[in-house]
Amino acid sequence: MSFHSMWAELLPVGRSSASGGYRRYAWTGADADCRAWFQEQAEARGLAFETDRNGNQWAWLGDPAAGNAVVTGSHLDSVPDGGAFDGPLGVVSAFAALDELRARGARFTRPLGIVNFGDEEGARFGLACVGSRLTAGALTVEQAHRLTDGDGVTLPQAMEDAGYDPGTLGPDPERLARIGAFVELHVEQGRALDLSGDRIGIASAIWPHGRWRFDFRGEANHAGTTRLADRHDPMLSYAETVLAARREAELAGAVATFGKIGVEPNGVNAIPSLVRGWLDSRAADQTSLDTVVTGIEKAAREYAAAHGVNLDVVRESFTPVVEFDHALRDELARILGTRAELKVPVLGTGAGHDAGILSDRIPTAMLFVRNPTGVSHSPAEYAAEDDCVAGVSALADVLEGLACT
Amino acid sequence: MSFHSMWAELLPVGRSSASGGYRRYAWTGADADCRAWFQEQAEARGLAFETDRNGNQWAWLGDPAAGNAVVTGSHLDSVPDGGAFDGPLGVVSAFAALDELRARGARFTRPLGIVNFGDEEGARFGLACVGSRLTAGALTVEQAHRLTDGDGVTLPQAMEDAGYDPGTLGPDPERLARIGAFVELHVEQGRALDLSGDRIGIASAIWPHGRWRFDFRGEANHAGTTRLADRHDPMLSYAETVLAARREAELAGAVATFGKIGVEPNGVNAIPSLVRGWLDSRAADQTSLDTVVTGIEKAAREYAAAHGVNLDVVRESFTPVVEFDHALRDELARILGTRAELKVPVLGTGAGHDAGILSDRIPTAMLFVRNPTGVSHSPAEYAAEDDCVAGVSALADVLEGLACT
Repeated sequence: MSFHSMWAELLPVGRSSASGGYRRYAWTGADADCRAWFQEQAEARGLAFETDRNGNQWAWLGDPAAGNAVVTGSHLDSVPDGGAFDGPLGVVSAFAALDELRARGARFTRPLGIVNFGDEEGARFGLACVGSRLTAGALTVEQAHRLTDGDGVTLPQAMEDAGYDPGTLGPDPERLARIGAFVELHVEQGRALDLSGDRIGIASAIWPHGRWRFDFRGEANHAGTTRLADRHDPMLSYAETVLAARREAELAGAVATFGKIGVEPNGVNAIPSLVRGWLDSRAADQTSLDTVVTGIEKAAREYAAAHGVNLDVVRESFTPVVEFDHALRDELARILGTRAELKVPVLGTGAGHDAGILSDRIPTAMLFVRNPTGVSHSPAEYAAEDDCVAGVSALADVLEGLACT
Repeated sequence: MSFHSMWAELLPVGRSSASGGYRRYAWTGADADCRAWFQEQAEARGLAFETDRNGNQWAWLGDPAAGNAVVTGSHLDSVPDGGAFDGPLGVVSAFAALDELRARGARFTRPLGIVNFGDEEGARFGLACVGSRLTAGALTVEQAHRLTDGDGVTLPQAMEDAGYDPGTLGPDPERLARIGAFVELHVEQGRALDLSGDRIGIASAIWPHGRWRFDFRGEANHAGTTRLADRHDPMLSYAETVLAARREAELAGAVATFGKIGVEPNGVNAIPSLVRGWLDSRAADQTSLDTVVTGIEKAAREYAAAHGVNLDVVRESFTPVVEFDHALRDELARILGTRAELKVPVLGTGAGHDAGILSDRIPTAMLFVRNPTGVSHSPAEYAAEDDCVAGVSALADVLEGLACT
């Protein structure tokens, strides 16, 4: 099955006709459809299919027990109203690269794995990379059990409702010990390749990033009859904090975003009792990130105090800077550098990935495919088919260089 | 059944154990429980019970067809996590006042009606006073059919699901023609009576007020990888507009509130594509209100343009200033003024009421009961039982003065 056919088959799954974006959230029906598609692709190629204890899907060529396996893949879930490429491009390209290597008559000397990590985006339970974090032991079972979606459904309950056993959740060091290299192909989520005029790039590092929840608690009251002077309106402190976040990020050359909000009671004629805003912030280095987040929190506390509003700030997740394995990165550059027509720049990224989670445990690398607008996490996310096909070839070259004679 | 017992019976209905506030939304289970309670109270007193074509409930002593009826009552629904008093106090006091008049041996010369208007708060469908608006012809059937809740359920569907026939919706001039006076008792939603030291007040006017929806449409994108300069983040324009609303309201001595928000896609790591904020604004006169809303909209358009964000502003509802019937108001003051121990000030209010909707069609008046904190639309909304009982006596005096020999 060609890249084009696989891509076309996956396109309608979990797509909202209202927004044109994807709603493939962990352990939902759309997620199940994606998982069924993955299993079909594995079985159609005669690969050994398995789901691991944390719900990640694997397809094996050769026996992983032999060790030193080369693994590629990504994820199939999406952010709310996300694009078609973030995640699926890496999984579809993995199967397409295997097909290309078989067509080339390549002979494998190491086991090859293709993986679909579960719940990478964290759209449902608020924490990204749950599948890879659990496997790497970067998320404990107790923490995973406390994850709850917007309707109050816990992660174990959601897993069980989807027909999986949450009792198996936990770290999986034996599995990781069998993997010698993990290479994740991903659409670029920025315009660096577009600006440099290249189709493919290699990742150098993932910026440190985190999520902080700001709970502004005021006093619910009637919007029509409460004098301005008598109000404790948390929406005002929230609004001031949103603007402070932009200023602090600009000063530090970083990014800071309030993209998610929850308001109680959220009535047109009620001053809110609670405005809960989530800050996502990332910077090239830890010091810059600390400066940004400290600055935002300090400003928020001053605003809250001025309005008689209570503020709690909770760091919900944090990932330090990830430097990808230098030896593997150099190996990829060497392999791809032998193709004279392809210049492959090395670039950093502000986005988190399963590859970033695993890089603590195993040698890990990433390939990026050009994104002409830089738009991601949006229905408008896009990569040209030519560039995607170039990505498949580059991934095939890398896998051939690493895993074949 | 005493005021105290009726009050205690109604207290648990639709109360959230999480917030301690009420979630009595139109055509939900909690609403059905409130309606069942009203019907029981009517029947226990031998009153003729009926539900009108728009879902409002009526209990009659005497034959309304005789005309020139005196009607009292209010509503039983609530804002999200609202208080116990806003609405129910007027309905419970109506039954209690009838009991007091019967105990006094009063002889009625005019039909007496007690009413529970449906969907006063507009918590579910976004428009306040739907029951009275439909009856008064201030909301057309076509407009009512277009009302939709947050889950996409239309008002007719919700009515049908609750066992009512939405086919009967429409103006009810015959019913209104039979009513000679409507008196609504309500908890004060401000501190005027507390500041003046009075238990009971008479309404002079309802401030003009309205709701405007501000749709800021930007471009969804990845919060980690999109440069600040490349963003069209509608959350920033929204935040600036929230602060502009406060400034404009302060300048005009009015109130302006952004208490409800909807964000798409509302993901932690996604720059929003849409931030939808609802403005509630009210002022003592039309000119002040126009100044406030025009100022906010002008500022919002400038902010949106600066961020490359599109802005639509839609006025969702508007109620001009309501001057209550002067003759009826003076009659109430005369009746209550004969009780030497009771000083009854006349005051304006920023809150909308069914009485305001009906005042266009029939002579209408309102009584307010002291609210010691001014807090309303909140679980902390409160009135002392002494003051509530004084309210019942005042309402009984008024009904006796208007409807008895």
